[in-house]
Amino acid sequence: MSSTKPGYLRPIDFKHGVVDMNHGAGGRVGAQLVNELFARAFDNDFLRQGNDGALLSIPAGHKVVMATDAHVISPLFFPGGDIGSLAVHGTINDVAMLGAQPLYLSASFILEEGFSLAQLKQIVESMARASRESGVPIVTGDTKVVEKGKGDGVFISTTGLGVLPDGRNIGGAQARVGDVILLSGCIGEHGVAVLSQRESLQFETAIRSDSAALHTLVAAMLAAAPEGSVRVLRDPTRGGLATTLNEIAQQSAVGMHVQEVAIPVLPEVAGACEMLGLDPLYIANEGKLVAMVAPEAADAVLAAMRAHPLGQRATRIGLVTEDPHHFVQMTTRFGGRRVVDWLSGEPLPRIC
Amino acid sequence: MSSTKPGYLRPIDFKHGVVDMNHGAGGRVGAQLVNELFARAFDNDFLRQGNDGALLSIPAGHKVVMATDAHVISPLFFPGGDIGSLAVHGTINDVAMLGAQPLYLSASFILEEGFSLAQLKQIVESMARASRESGVPIVTGDTKVVEKGKGDGVFISTTGLGVLPDGRNIGGAQARVGDVILLSGCIGEHGVAVLSQRESLQFETAIRSDSAALHTLVAAMLAAAPEGSVRVLRDPTRGGLATTLNEIAQQSAVGMHVQEVAIPVLPEVAGACEMLGLDPLYIANEGKLVAMVAPEAADAVLAAMRAHPLGQRATRIGLVTEDPHHFVQMTTRFGGRRVVDWLSGEPLPRIC
Repeated sequence: MSSTKPGYLRPIDFKHGVVDMNHGAGGRVGAQLVNELFARAFDNDFLRQGNDGALLSIPAGHKVVMATDAHVISPLFFPGGDIGSLAVHGTINDVAMLGAQPLYLSASFILEEGFSLAQLKQIVESMARASRESGVPIVTGDTKVVEKGKGDGVFISTTGLGVLPDGRNIGGAQARVGDVILLSGCIGEHGVAVLSQRESLQFETAIRSDSAALHTLVAAMLAAAPEGSVRVLRDPTRGGLATTLNEIAQQSAVGMHVQEVAIPVLPEVAGACEMLGLDPLYIANEGKLVAMVAPEAADAVLAAMRAHPLGQRATRIGLVTEDPHHFVQMTTRFGGRRVVDWLSGEPLPRIC
Repeated sequence: MSSTKPGYLRPIDFKHGVVDMNHGAGGRVGAQLVNELFARAFDNDFLRQGNDGALLSIPAGHKVVMATDAHVISPLFFPGGDIGSLAVHGTINDVAMLGAQPLYLSASFILEEGFSLAQLKQIVESMARASRESGVPIVTGDTKVVEKGKGDGVFISTTGLGVLPDGRNIGGAQARVGDVILLSGCIGEHGVAVLSQRESLQFETAIRSDSAALHTLVAAMLAAAPEGSVRVLRDPTRGGLATTLNEIAQQSAVGMHVQEVAIPVLPEVAGACEMLGLDPLYIANEGKLVAMVAPEAADAVLAAMRAHPLGQRATRIGLVTEDPHHFVQMTTRFGGRRVVDWLSGEPLPRIC
């Protein structure tokens, strides 16, 4: 994303204009789009370096965390966000889930010929806002254009860089038998909010996506407990809470036992899920996290979560157990017990 | 790209199978594709961490360089490479052009429903080979799937991380009047090789893409001259050599003067360009670089380039001049002088 200034061109018509193949061809018109839209919205010292990469500082005594996500959500706009804010939040969260402090983002755009420049501007400005609010600048990027019918408006891939104090070790393989499983809030809002906008499913709802950057919540949790007591952090996105718990059980070679009554679900989400024949346990979230925490630290971590705006409804949902089959079991609200499997069967495509 | 092992699934049919929406849905089938294809091909300690991000080491006393590129090339396979090798080379080169040593790559894939798994495997394995040959591992990734007709087989975004010794300052704004302009080899091969495969243009040619990772060439150049004497490095991709020189002239607030006879073009490339009505100066390259070098260091840097397999035909093509208009001027082979403008008019879409 070089930000050299091309001359002799009319200003871009961000009201009525559309993306055309020239915007991706590497000439004057492409440079103009970068300058008048991306560089202006994301403006920071790194982008202003004007090279095909950004020169960054990493504080000494840290490891670096790198995470990447492609975003293909459909529709592009949904209650509570859009593909732009989601692309910022999703990748910040992947970095934060390793206990790292996110510092920098890169962004690459694949635009479809004919896509409205007004909508593109709205998405880029939403992305810029999410980046500023999170304190994580977009330092480098790229834009490509594909012919009409070879894309779907806009796809955005973001990569995040963060730093981790040497010695901190948080990850999916660190859960231990006896750890307490904490959940930062209600599940299912993102997926239901997106589904409510699908042409085929449109229904009335006040449900908004929970899309949010969780790095300050993570920092508050880590500050509340001795180093080493938060073992696993993960955001239950695609596949929902059920799939995330299964992934961790597999990686850590443990079982899990959760209480259905302890898992908070907004009544509107529960209602929509019933109507659509979906289980909130399998619905994507974009502003929630699940944590496995040493039992002696669980109360302190939970209190820190509840004191944070993004963890007010945080709760203890279960325990890590010994289980050679690595099953996730759930005591249902009727007192029975069942195995909660990975997502299978009908997928919910393009939810993130 | 979590690499937890799902069970109870039939092996993927990489001969006759196709991508389906389940591969992107975050459940067991998606995890299986990650495990049996991506994790196996790219295998390294970082991916084996099995989290949504990778934990990396950065040597002390270095700045970090981050660069990203979306790859949407069409067709996916072309003489001399494919979208997989290109996605590795292109991003390594963006990192290397700041004088940095590329260390890590991330990769995100946007797959189209119905895309052949055999072709996907071929692309992923080519990508893995390019990564191994370059010594730059793919440490984290993501895979999404879009409905048939909403993508085009596969798009790949890669992000590269590299390290730069503190104090090294190479970039598009560093060219100085009097610097010598070096070019590492013949131009136009990548673009012509790709165009030769387009359905609308298919023609007989032995021209292969020059797609290559240039970081070892850069290292050899930097080792050959005192720190500070290599001012600018850039790979003339989209928009070709002409656009790249204009970008640098603009950023450095200088002019350029190049000699047409000094710019090497293979006869087959010149012939194809004549046939297609294209100017090789505007055709994308994926394994060439242009450098602005202090005059007293130019001979040593040029010798180092020629001693490297990727710079055998390196040559001096011109000089950085003083010019308040920041024009790139060229003495033509007939002795005239003309301004070489940015790419404009008909674009060559989806060339990278």
